[in-house]
Amino acid sequence: MQHAKKPSSTVGVGIIGYGYWGPNLVRNFAEQGAARLVAVSDLSVDRLTEVHARFPQVKVTTDCEDLIADPAVDAVVVATPVTSHFALARRALQAGKHVLVAKPITADSTQAMELIEAAEQRGLILMVDHTFLYTGAVQTIKQLVATGNLGQLYYFDSVRVNLGLFQKDVNVLWDLAVHDLSIMDYVLGVQPVAVAATGSAHIQGHQVNLAYLTCHFDGSLITHHHVNWLAPLKVRRTLIGGARQMIVYDDLEPSEKVKVYDKGITVAGDPQGARETMIGYRTGDMWAPQVSLTEGLRVEAQHFLECIIHGRQPLTDGHCGLRVVRILEAAARSLAEKGQPVTLASAGESPKASSLKLKVLERSA
Amino acid sequence: MQHAKKPSSTVGVGIIGYGYWGPNLVRNFAEQGAARLVAVSDLSVDRLTEVHARFPQVKVTTDCEDLIADPAVDAVVVATPVTSHFALARRALQAGKHVLVAKPITADSTQAMELIEAAEQRGLILMVDHTFLYTGAVQTIKQLVATGNLGQLYYFDSVRVNLGLFQKDVNVLWDLAVHDLSIMDYVLGVQPVAVAATGSAHIQGHQVNLAYLTCHFDGSLITHHHVNWLAPLKVRRTLIGGARQMIVYDDLEPSEKVKVYDKGITVAGDPQGARETMIGYRTGDMWAPQVSLTEGLRVEAQHFLECIIHGRQPLTDGHCGLRVVRILEAAARSLAEKGQPVTLASAGESPKASSLKLKVLERSA
Amino acid sequence: MQHAKKPSSTVGVGIIGYGYWGPNLVRNFAEQGAARLVAVSDLSVDRLTEVHARFPQVKVTTDCEDLIADPAVDAVVVATPVTSHFALARRALQAGKHVLVAKPITADSTQAMELIEAAEQRGLILMVDHTFLYTGAVQTIKQLVATGNLGQLYYFDSVRVNLGLFQKDVNVLWDLAVHDLSIMDYVLGVQPVAVAATGSAHIQGHQVNLAYLTCHFDGSLITHHHVNWLAPLKVRRTLIGGARQMIVYDDLEPSEKVKVYDKGITVAGDPQGARETMIGYRTGDMWAPQVSLTEGLRVEAQHFLECIIHGRQPLTDGHCGLRVVRILEAAARSLAEKGQPVTLASAGESPKASSLKLKVLERSA
Amino acid sequence: MQHAKKPSSTVGVGIIGYGYWGPNLVRNFAEQGAARLVAVSDLSVDRLTEVHARFPQVKVTTDCEDLIADPAVDAVVVATPVTSHFALARRALQAGKHVLVAKPITADSTQAMELIEAAEQRGLILMVDHTFLYTGAVQTIKQLVATGNLGQLYYFDSVRVNLGLFQKDVNVLWDLAVHDLSIMDYVLGVQPVAVAATGSAHIQGHQVNLAYLTCHFDGSLITHHHVNWLAPLKVRRTLIGGARQMIVYDDLEPSEKVKVYDKGITVAGDPQGARETMIGYRTGDMWAPQVSLTEGLRVEAQHFLECIIHGRQPLTDGHCGLRVVRILEAAARSLAEKGQPVTLASAGESPKASSLKLKVLERSA
Repeated sequence: MQHAKKPSSTVGVGIIGYGYWGPNLVRNFAEQGAARLVAVSDLSVDRLTEVHARFPQVKVTTDCEDLIADPAVDAVVVATPVTSHFALARRALQAGKHVLVAKPITADSTQAMELIEAAEQRGLILMVDHTFLYTGAVQTIKQLVATGNLGQLYYFDSVRVNLGLFQKDVNVLWDLAVHDLSIMDYVLGVQPVAVAATGSAHIQGHQVNLAYLTCHFDGSLITHHHVNWLAPLKVRRTLIGGARQMIVYDDLEPSEKVKVYDKGITVAGDPQGARETMIGYRTGDMWAPQVSLTEGLRVEAQHFLECIIHGRQPLTDGHCGLRVVRILEAAARSLAEKGQPVTLASAGESPKASSLKLKVLERSA
Repeated sequence: MQHAKKPSSTVGVGIIGYGYWGPNLVRNFAEQGAARLVAVSDLSVDRLTEVHARFPQVKVTTDCEDLIADPAVDAVVVATPVTSHFALARRALQAGKHVLVAKPITADSTQAMELIEAAEQRGLILMVDHTFLYTGAVQTIKQLVATGNLGQLYYFDSVRVNLGLFQKDVNVLWDLAVHDLSIMDYVLGVQPVAVAATGSAHIQGHQVNLAYLTCHFDGSLITHHHVNWLAPLKVRRTLIGGARQMIVYDDLEPSEKVKVYDKGITVAGDPQGARETMIGYRTGDMWAPQVSLTEGLRVEAQHFLECIIHGRQPLTDGHCGLRVVRILEAAARSLAEKGQPVTLASAGESPKASSLKLKVLERSA
Repeated sequence: MQHAKKPSSTVGVGIIGYGYWGPNLVRNFAEQGAARLVAVSDLSVDRLTEVHARFPQVKVTTDCEDLIADPAVDAVVVATPVTSHFALARRALQAGKHVLVAKPITADSTQAMELIEAAEQRGLILMVDHTFLYTGAVQTIKQLVATGNLGQLYYFDSVRVNLGLFQKDVNVLWDLAVHDLSIMDYVLGVQPVAVAATGSAHIQGHQVNLAYLTCHFDGSLITHHHVNWLAPLKVRRTLIGGARQMIVYDDLEPSEKVKVYDKGITVAGDPQGARETMIGYRTGDMWAPQVSLTEGLRVEAQHFLECIIHGRQPLTDGHCGLRVVRILEAAARSLAEKGQPVTLASAGESPKASSLKLKVLERSA
Repeated sequence: MQHAKKPSSTVGVGIIGYGYWGPNLVRNFAEQGAARLVAVSDLSVDRLTEVHARFPQVKVTTDCEDLIADPAVDAVVVATPVTSHFALARRALQAGKHVLVAKPITADSTQAMELIEAAEQRGLILMVDHTFLYTGAVQTIKQLVATGNLGQLYYFDSVRVNLGLFQKDVNVLWDLAVHDLSIMDYVLGVQPVAVAATGSAHIQGHQVNLAYLTCHFDGSLITHHHVNWLAPLKVRRTLIGGARQMIVYDDLEPSEKVKVYDKGITVAGDPQGARETMIGYRTGDMWAPQVSLTEGLRVEAQHFLECIIHGRQPLTDGHCGLRVVRILEAAARSLAEKGQPVTLASAGESPKASSLKLKVLERSA
């Protein structure tokens, strides 16, 4: 029994890290026609044994330098603990590889800016794994908000809590809120001017496991993000309030993940010319648009490959990763001050992505 | 057809305010065997006409001074906008009447302290309408926490959001969070050392309609309260996390309002003597104890009457009301500073309730 | 304080039976501007004392003959156990009163036909209390089905189970399924050709408390109704399946009671001309139209009064009651035979309602 | 990189059929340490290509006779359409192989009895893939019922509906109800005396896609099973009612799949010595025992292998499959008669499993 060889124009992919998220990356890249899964590295021999059992044709190694140096590898996926993202991604970019980094892109904004610059100098793709942006639910929400039908945006309120998976190197904001911040950044398309965060570390010797993060914007828009590693229930719910419509996004719903409520208040001037406005309540239909249920990571893997092959800027590029890290940095400072608000600098942003010239995958030529 | 006359030892009750909440108070006091509903006052003649239609034997008046002065009235219930609570309750106490005040007890802590003192000087009952404390659900939670089975308390997280009922004289914290703060104060039995609050006012000319309030305590205990008048969904859910068990209290559940989860993490010292602790996850049974579904306000009305008749200190006395108002005051200051934490003074607390001598209802003798 | 007298053209209403459902009828007729609540009768003095306490101006009596004979009573509402419906309704019609009878209209179809005839002969309104037909949810469903957008109707499947309220004189089908049959009759607008029912009586000396009823129609349409007095959960859910759209009606949902699913299958002829059809699955949006949340009984009471005042045929007339009783009769026969199907006679239907001449309320002239 | 060779005592497994369910079987047997996945056969070359891509070491063939004849195959798993189960399982048994057959075991009871006899004559394992019996939820329910704490069993009511997957060779009862009947048979441990079924075929040229099946037992116990391929919602809910406790099993709940309600009614003799019993309602706590969330098929595969290796009778042996097929046969007859009840013959049952002598896997010696 014979298999057709994949065309030589496929992208050779190497994946560093086969822990919690790595297996999902490996599986998704393995199923992409445009990719060849070349190598996987991890510090654990047991995990590599597992990789080998499932994918005998893939090289496995405990030394990620081998993987980065491998000429068959065009693109490196970094799925290691946060503190190692920067060093590994930089090494890969220096070696001329395109890079996809797990979220958050780096442990601080200086590192993120350096990676952006390194990628831009070399015309390489730098993409961050903000995976929810590639789901049907978030794509639908983005489109709904973009129509303007919600009216003036009032708030974005997310809850992401469950029991489990304490991280060692980062606190719960860097682990869970990063998802909601990336969705918020994408859907709202504006950046906060100030951030306040509170939280608590309940387990001695461990980081903050419960936190509340508020982002303030110009005007009355406000966002809030509740994350918790120690909750008895799993909750994944976001409310987006507008003057005319409101959205409820519940990622645990099997199919109706996005619901649009034609609800709100009406404000009328007082007919007596008095100083008060009259508030009325408006309720209407609810509507749950069909959303694609394709796994976000599958869409994302395909997008990463297309960006490499066609030299396009990714949806979740380095700037996207940087914006989220800046909020997390400010939140960390606020958290240390029990909620003291921290102003976000708007300066220092790197040049617009559209002006960049990206290298088209050479090996595919 | 004849009705047995109520015994002369019943408490004569006058209710000021027949707006949103007043009808519930009127109905519940009308159904108490230990009470005679004597009079209702309101500024609206239409509303009084409604009272008269349903309760022809009850006096109605637009002048609350008539009601307070009425010698048949032993106890006055104040169910007016917050800003008028203090003046009306003070007048009633000065007239020698027992007083039940709607929540929050007053618009500031100075007023609350003055009412407490006025009541204590005269040996009168001063009670605040923290109605949830009289529900089966909160009573059950209180008992569960009191057993100590939850282990060290980690957090208390409440969400109380819905579409509607903008208040004119107070913001959403004074309207909705007051419920959760009263529950938290009762269940945890400790007072916060600092408060941080953020929020937003989305409707021009109106108060903050969406807010997030964090309370910090000695140790790692933290509480958070999310309230919103502009949400597409109605949510009434509180998570209480302990080291050994966790509680979910969902007031919208028709019968299983309180669920106890035998879940948590286990922390083990590293056997290698290294610096890290190992975290394990523990899941177990869930248990929903049967809770009384009797309306809280019914239990509360009965309790108020019993406190009057037997000279007992109410569960939700003036101190209880004061503690909640102090948190709300601190939250107001923090809110004005975008989340800047505000320290709560612990001093100035009035003498312990148990040392008071309360007047037993005289008219009943 | 004075009340405007109700105009003399109001309908004088007498209500027989103040047990489980009676208080709802009394409350709703008391709130109708077009009605004067004249009298209430019940066999229990305690219950009448309760009525008197709430409505001192209403006559109370243990003898329903007094009520029926009262010249101030224009219309009689019968809310007694099923076995007494026929005798009481007939007496009231014979006394020249309009009649509203609780569901089911009578204990058998012969009785129902006799009532219909008695009312038609005298030009009096005869209405059955199929209260769900007056809810916003069922009205919305009726309209949705009437548009034809569902495509060919496939099935109507209802579940109405809970713990409680064993009836003494009827089994669970006559108590609970009557609601679903009335909704089905109204929404589908066609009558079954055969009925099959199974069930069980679990408590010695009591009637069948759990039953399953299937109605067969011409074509492939089928309906099924599951009722149970001994369920641990309360469920009120109906699925209506059509070729193009499907409806889920969940009466326990606080606001989104009706959901329309743009789902179904597509059937394509086999392109090879073979004998098989190919089935595809089609999923689309879900939509929850806003439904009026006004209490059905309130709308129904108003409708009854309007039918009397303007001489109109009621939505839930005697024929409506009869059609449901015929199904229940057939179900009883099938139940006795462990599910043996019973054919429904289509003959014997009384003349079309539209041909009748109804008496306009005379006292109002 | 080397892998330890599996010991020679492992069971060689061949799987016939790689359609809807086959991939799950392949995956689960591939992960069992006690098995060697030797070969997979299917009529589709495309599917075999897929198998080869994932499991390069496994033989693939379009001719199942090759697989059955393969001396490396000790056990054959039949996962083909129902109509072919009998012939394939018989061939495998004749070839001396142990057999696991997908549900339902055969297309009629004569075939099932023949397979049972064939296996028993040869001392081979014959097992049917009633996969739900191997889940933590059903195991927990079995234990709860076995304690007797539920009191007298009243009913077992299951709903298994969704949109999709019309089968060609069997109707919806043989596809979906088979799951519920196997659970019912296991949990209750008694066999019905009569069966009634109704349903409808909505799509021309296709089988009944919506059906309702009732089983009657000695005494008042009744079970009912609602299955539908054309529902807008996915529902997987079973109610089990007992005199003292009731169980709700909702397989779509992520973790609390089994809930025990301490609810019911109390029946008291009439103190007046009259003929009526008095009914009271009892509500109490609800309790959700922790259930194992291990995939049922994983447990089942392991059990099949253990039965082979140690010569044990499987939990879901041929008799188990036969009992379910007998109910389905009776249901088919009732369905054709619009619900006419069909009596189940209790005779003809094969000898008790415990008396059998099973062959211990020889190749492992």
